[in-house]
Amino acid sequence: MGVLEGCGGKETAVGAVSCSKLPVPIRIIHHLLTLMVILGKTMGIKKPFTEVIRANIGDAQAMGQQPITFLRQVMALCTYPNLLDSPSFPEDAKKRARRILQACGGNSLGSYSASQGVNCIREDVAAYITRRDGGVPADPDNIYLTTGASDGISTILKILVSGGGKSRTGVLIPIPQYPLYSAVISELDAVQVNYYLDEENCWALNVNELRRAVREAKEHCDPKVLCIINPGNPTGQVQSRKCIEDVIHFAWEEKLFLLADEVYQDNVYSPGCRFHSFKKVLHEMGPEYSSNVELASFHSTSKGYMGECGYRGGYMEVINLHPEIKGQLVKLLSVRLCPPVSGQAAMDIVVNPPVPGEESFEQFRREKESVLGDLAKKAKLTEDLFNQVPGVRCNPLQGAMYAFPRIFLPARAVEAAQAHTMAPDMFYCMKLLEETGICVVPGSGFGQREGTYHFRMTILPPVEKLRTVLQKVKEFHIKFLEKYA
Amino acid sequence: MGVLEGCGGKETAVGAVSCSKLPVPIRIIHHLLTLMVILGKTMGIKKPFTEVIRANIGDAQAMGQQPITFLRQVMALCTYPNLLDSPSFPEDAKKRARRILQACGGNSLGSYSASQGVNCIREDVAAYITRRDGGVPADPDNIYLTTGASDGISTILKILVSGGGKSRTGVLIPIPQYPLYSAVISELDAVQVNYYLDEENCWALNVNELRRAVREAKEHCDPKVLCIINPGNPTGQVQSRKCIEDVIHFAWEEKLFLLADEVYQDNVYSPGCRFHSFKKVLHEMGPEYSSNVELASFHSTSKGYMGECGYRGGYMEVINLHPEIKGQLVKLLSVRLCPPVSGQAAMDIVVNPPVPGEESFEQFRREKESVLGDLAKKAKLTEDLFNQVPGVRCNPLQGAMYAFPRIFLPARAVEAAQAHTMAPDMFYCMKLLEETGICVVPGSGFGQREGTYHFRMTILPPVEKLRTVLQKVKEFHIKFLEKYA
Repeated sequence: MGVLEGCGGKETAVGAVSCSKLPVPIRIIHHLLTLMVILGKTMGIKKPFTEVIRANIGDAQAMGQQPITFLRQVMALCTYPNLLDSPSFPEDAKKRARRILQACGGNSLGSYSASQGVNCIREDVAAYITRRDGGVPADPDNIYLTTGASDGISTILKILVSGGGKSRTGVLIPIPQYPLYSAVISELDAVQVNYYLDEENCWALNVNELRRAVREAKEHCDPKVLCIINPGNPTGQVQSRKCIEDVIHFAWEEKLFLLADEVYQDNVYSPGCRFHSFKKVLHEMGPEYSSNVELASFHSTSKGYMGECGYRGGYMEVINLHPEIKGQLVKLLSVRLCPPVSGQAAMDIVVNPPVPGEESFEQFRREKESVLGDLAKKAKLTEDLFNQVPGVRCNPLQGAMYAFPRIFLPARAVEAAQAHTMAPDMFYCMKLLEETGICVVPGSGFGQREGTYHFRMTILPPVEKLRTVLQKVKEFHIKFLEKYA
Repeated sequence: MGVLEGCGGKETAVGAVSCSKLPVPIRIIHHLLTLMVILGKTMGIKKPFTEVIRANIGDAQAMGQQPITFLRQVMALCTYPNLLDSPSFPEDAKKRARRILQACGGNSLGSYSASQGVNCIREDVAAYITRRDGGVPADPDNIYLTTGASDGISTILKILVSGGGKSRTGVLIPIPQYPLYSAVISELDAVQVNYYLDEENCWALNVNELRRAVREAKEHCDPKVLCIINPGNPTGQVQSRKCIEDVIHFAWEEKLFLLADEVYQDNVYSPGCRFHSFKKVLHEMGPEYSSNVELASFHSTSKGYMGECGYRGGYMEVINLHPEIKGQLVKLLSVRLCPPVSGQAAMDIVVNPPVPGEESFEQFRREKESVLGDLAKKAKLTEDLFNQVPGVRCNPLQGAMYAFPRIFLPARAVEAAQAHTMAPDMFYCMKLLEETGICVVPGSGFGQREGTYHFRMTILPPVEKLRTVLQKVKEFHIKFLEKYA
């Protein structure tokens, strides 16, 4: 059961967009595998592994990460306000809960909120952004609470996409990309315009490549939107300030609407790397840019150090959105009434955590640093271990929570895959799963340069377990190379 | 602030679909009104009322209804499992919480679930449906947990709609309708095919009218989907078993896909009325129907006796869905990862409440009966009071939670509205709001027969407050008639 349960997320999204490329959708693999495991258990059939390790999906708590205590305390108080009288809950948690409840209809998480989200939570988000960006102001009116970041991204794309024929909207996305983008673009019948990240250069975004992509796209569509994922998913790069400036300048030149997917903003590990928000850089580039470039940026409760995926909390901030478009946005959002209020409350705690001097601060700090410290350790460990394997090359995991190593597959493996009408990296991942129980996602689900092969693996298992997993992948890989040499 | 907050829901959905009909969207009214209230407060300007009463939106807890204790206890335990050791929580609530958590990745509401929803919750939903329908079996594989019913309805419509030109998909909806339908149909560029409910006959659905609508629609589109809302929103009728049989037979004849919006299935008040599910009637009509007619039915945590709108919990059950369509459905759902797990947990408690012999049963029964008993009282009170007002005619509120009275407006009022470029019932609702602070939604937002006028008002305020509200509407109406006589 556990296997099916945990596989509902990211990797089925992969299945959704890559069916043409993946003759056996990865979801089906999991179903088969589950059956194998169940049959194995009930019929005594032996598998070469005892446990399935779901390193396919960025689902921290499913991999054993514990929720941040303060966040859950506030959520419990909001859920069942009788607990506000309980001496077992700290005062700062109660203060947060009271503030959220007072802003809810009937003082209850059970009421609808405004479609844009609860007012005081939007104010807290704006205050958070202002702090994060060293004083660059954020306006609560520009904040929209969402059902996770996915909901915000697909909603704004829905509004921006229009036209048919040569005037069909082109949406630029990085390759490799998180497959939500390709799925939504295809749903909306827009044109997916690929720009390739530079694998030789730690997956950096090169503006010349953007220029090429836009130039070629103009021959058959109207490129209007530029999507950026920073820190990158699945590629883990953290963009430099210079790179962001170049991208903004390019968007200004080409009048592109910028979508900045910044859900991994707390997940930066490499020394020398720092998260710079597009909003802050835009502001600092001066009024010519900051009054003209249209930007929507996204955040979520699902990643960072909290990993609260199940609550589906998120927000987007929009800058320079045309008032008419803003009107359309509110209309579109209002059809679905409101984002889950519990997810909104979770978002509030993420942007309004305990501060020094508050009762819960020390425990909060400890828990947060422990998660982020472990992730940094695991990022390094993963890079190092993969690069020891012959035929594997892995860029530094500067941020986010995935490794996306390149695997060099022998010609005979490629032929064997073709004989099974499978993409070669799909064939590889399938074998890995069958032989080790380790579940990762083939690069073809994210897009990659023709003739190159990759897979995405999360670094979410606990440190020691991750070490074992990496060791197993290494052994599998060496055997695989031998078999198909 | 409170006004803006509470207005985010249903009535902005009205704004979203009826802009062409409503020159001043009702959302703007609320914004103006809020400004008026704030200005009135700060500048000492007197309004003729002291409180805004939001009778525009089916948001029970915002109107003061208390959450069901058991539901919130289980939710709190799931949120903060430390409470499982607390002696202040009953054992049956702990048992439910443990069961839900065991089915979640990492035993946490913070993990993604499968896109279709948590397995054990889908099993509980299936068991609930089987009980509700007197043993007609339900299959967990046919259950999809959703982000409220709206999400399920728009997802399934997205899959069913296709084609262009004369082969554009026609979707039959009742008039008056809940405006989610018209909004989604327009979003999907499908054709809205109206069938009119029979106001003279308690808003009953007449199959001859369906026949007329389909016949005329076939001239310009391909009618494929038939939407039913039972109990009705905004019209409050409860369909008889005979009527449902006729509708199913018609769908079978015309090969229409049935969408049964049954979110008010617990809200039936009139003696002699009973809720019959489409699923049950379909089954009882024999295999020719039950193996062929395609059906999706919807339920939600937002209505009934629990009124948990904010959690955005819901489910749909699909019957006879073609495997290929099912595949597409799963793909589409997986792009958005999963419905909020807290909403799924809330849905679980709705379908798996305390039973006789369990510790919490008595309190649960008392709370549930109190809410439903009050609603029944308020339904009768509202019908009786409206029918005492000259120029108002109100059908019995057999179910759901709204009155949708017809108002007969004098010719001079219609002229005055036109002078303000407003729909006449919009003009009326606007005046009602300005003079009494009572916020209701004009019938033009739901659709109505040409030349007739209505408004929708919830019956959610507490009994005594509702009595006052109705009295005020009565006084306003009499003055309005006098003014425009």
